[in-house]
Amino acid sequence: MLDEMKKRVYEMNVELPRQGLVAMTSGNVSGRRPGDDRVVIKPSGMPYEEMGPEDMVVVDLQGEVLEGDKKPSSDTASHLYVYRQRQDVNGMVHTHSNYATSFAALGEPIPACLTQIADEFGGDIPVGPFVPIGEEDIGQAIVENIGDSPGILLKNHGVFTVGESPEAALKSAVMVEDAARTVHLAQTRGEPDRLPDEAIERAHRRYQEDYGQ
Amino acid sequence: MLDEMKKRVYEMNVELPRQGLVAMTSGNVSGRRPGDDRVVIKPSGMPYEEMGPEDMVVVDLQGEVLEGDKKPSSDTASHLYVYRQRQDVNGMVHTHSNYATSFAALGEPIPACLTQIADEFGGDIPVGPFVPIGEEDIGQAIVENIGDSPGILLKNHGVFTVGESPEAALKSAVMVEDAARTVHLAQTRGEPDRLPDEAIERAHRRYQEDYGQ
Amino acid sequence: MLDEMKKRVYEMNVELPRQGLVAMTSGNVSGRRPGDDRVVIKPSGMPYEEMGPEDMVVVDLQGEVLEGDKKPSSDTASHLYVYRQRQDVNGMVHTHSNYATSFAALGEPIPACLTQIADEFGGDIPVGPFVPIGEEDIGQAIVENIGDSPGILLKNHGVFTVGESPEAALKSAVMVEDAARTVHLAQTRGEPDRLPDEAIERAHRRYQEDYGQ
Amino acid sequence: MLDEMKKRVYEMNVELPRQGLVAMTSGNVSGRRPGDDRVVIKPSGMPYEEMGPEDMVVVDLQGEVLEGDKKPSSDTASHLYVYRQRQDVNGMVHTHSNYATSFAALGEPIPACLTQIADEFGGDIPVGPFVPIGEEDIGQAIVENIGDSPGILLKNHGVFTVGESPEAALKSAVMVEDAARTVHLAQTRGEPDRLPDEAIERAHRRYQEDYGQ
Repeated sequence: MLDEMKKRVYEMNVELPRQGLVAMTSGNVSGRRPGDDRVVIKPSGMPYEEMGPEDMVVVDLQGEVLEGDKKPSSDTASHLYVYRQRQDVNGMVHTHSNYATSFAALGEPIPACLTQIADEFGGDIPVGPFVPIGEEDIGQAIVENIGDSPGILLKNHGVFTVGESPEAALKSAVMVEDAARTVHLAQTRGEPDRLPDEAIERAHRRYQEDYGQ
Repeated sequence: MLDEMKKRVYEMNVELPRQGLVAMTSGNVSGRRPGDDRVVIKPSGMPYEEMGPEDMVVVDLQGEVLEGDKKPSSDTASHLYVYRQRQDVNGMVHTHSNYATSFAALGEPIPACLTQIADEFGGDIPVGPFVPIGEEDIGQAIVENIGDSPGILLKNHGVFTVGESPEAALKSAVMVEDAARTVHLAQTRGEPDRLPDEAIERAHRRYQEDYGQ
Repeated sequence: MLDEMKKRVYEMNVELPRQGLVAMTSGNVSGRRPGDDRVVIKPSGMPYEEMGPEDMVVVDLQGEVLEGDKKPSSDTASHLYVYRQRQDVNGMVHTHSNYATSFAALGEPIPACLTQIADEFGGDIPVGPFVPIGEEDIGQAIVENIGDSPGILLKNHGVFTVGESPEAALKSAVMVEDAARTVHLAQTRGEPDRLPDEAIERAHRRYQEDYGQ
Repeated sequence: MLDEMKKRVYEMNVELPRQGLVAMTSGNVSGRRPGDDRVVIKPSGMPYEEMGPEDMVVVDLQGEVLEGDKKPSSDTASHLYVYRQRQDVNGMVHTHSNYATSFAALGEPIPACLTQIADEFGGDIPVGPFVPIGEEDIGQAIVENIGDSPGILLKNHGVFTVGESPEAALKSAVMVEDAARTVHLAQTRGEPDRLPDEAIERAHRRYQEDYGQ
């Protein structure tokens, strides 16, 4: 069932340690086919180097396991909440990547002071409140606070990104960390100017419309 | 003698440079089988890339070498002190990993301001006093100050973690450094809020009971 | 057409992720043969690990695509502006490398407080204003502000380097980031002394004339 | 001539990029056999990935090239000054490793606030003045300021380490950077206590006498 999507979700999960976004078993990626009511997600607490595509768990939008002999990620209920509320979201990533999570620790957004942030996020990378892990509270906090951004920080916790595919959500997770790293470095020495709203909008539009093949 | 445990202790030792936790020959891992009165430990000052499982040294709980033609780690007496006092400990790791050791340098605990710290450590990662290397003073400082945490910092020195196995202690050593890195980054820009005790307890319980396979 | 230059430009493009200077698809390298009126440049937004030499795009100095089935980099107009104004430039690199871009975020030059900066750059690494991406504004800002330096920062954006070849521009891009890293670290703890002008000139001359084979 | 030493010096040179201590062609290692009046040193400005053992240059203590078709390192005169003054030194390393060089940029020693610094260096890692590159001034500054330490920083420049062999000098170069990294991190958040002299001496003696095989 969903072998192609399992392979893609697996590939994006193992990309997390390759990109330096996770330590040990932390972090997870999920995905669904557009319009489908099934979600493929990482098994809970499983080492990345021991996983294969066949270990990905298939659940329905209420969290019922449809296929897989592993327990799904402990963040599953929150992923599903987002998939139920956002038909445009077909991929999600969660990490504790260090630089971005340092903004989450302080409950601070990452300001749009770089063209790369304007390009990818279309504004500041927002931050939502602290909510407990395990049920769908995190999913609710994401939906309520993410706006049009593909990425959000949750206070005292970490990073969540969404996208039209697992690959798009993974790209945003990498770019959140890359932006956070540069802004952190700048903020330890001074206060970078935020780009004007008009420049942010123009850069974001150009990036969406003209960039890439 | 204890070939299986030698292999496991060797594997966790070479994981230290792979995880970026040590420079040159620093750091060490030991392990014992539950209920056994023999401990397997890294040889002193030996390069990780030159070691094999057969170089691991077997000692009894008083430090007598039972097997191995190498001198055991210079921290052996301290490892043994912990193993004698704590029947639940069957693996130990020592590193000077940079971010965590910067907290040790200042004699500061790592505060439980992130869900990942609550999950893994159940509270702040504590710090013990400076004590000299070579005899069992370090072991005593660990036992007196570690409480229920799997990890502790010793002032002006570094990181020590304990666990039910060498693999568990290694995981905690990675997670101490990962937590230290994020908290360091946050503290250079502001003061992160500690999580409420109740949230820490709930997160820690959930992580122990529900997380993983 | 220009197979040798395509191979060289491709090699320098894939050197960007190897050297840790870019995240995902960001960054680009271009090159031309001395005296030629054609430029070889990276395709827009293409993953480095999926590219081959045959994907490099050949454009004339007005931006007309002469060969290649990919769209050229969105920074092409700015590269071409520099090539038109500077006959001595036959290679260009653009990155958002983190440490250097943190200086760009603050609109600050990297001061010549290290012999390695004097050697490679002959003075402070300058910073130009923020200008929008997409047309040749960036190229103009580079030409107006770079002086004799092989590298420049543009405010709220990133790093641009030029050289007599793509390989030389790549080397400068690596050295900008390396210098930025050390100066950042020093500036978070104090204020490093700038080298005297006379020492900078002597070091730069020696490096140009005596260093290397 | 000196094929064994060329191989060892080559191996320690290529260890520099592997250990993350250098960017591009910067840095160098030299070595001599105890009692010999010939020194083997890296060729000037040659990429590490293009070098082989046969590219190492053999010079006498006055800098005359005895063997090799490459120009020796531009730091050769300074290496030779140290070898002439210090019979106990048979290996030297020079890097601009980032954390240690940030202390050099500020003209600050690295204080002995960690057991690993006491172990390896027997006290603070000292800093010497800024002196120009190219002649033997650097060698003089090293000999005058290094004392009993295996490593020293030179202001506005970088790191120099010495040892009884190229391998020992390389180890010290790695340990300088590792120590610098942790002390930098601590100093950005507070002021670490220096260890008492008596504790430093005891740790250093134990490390020299008991540590290792």
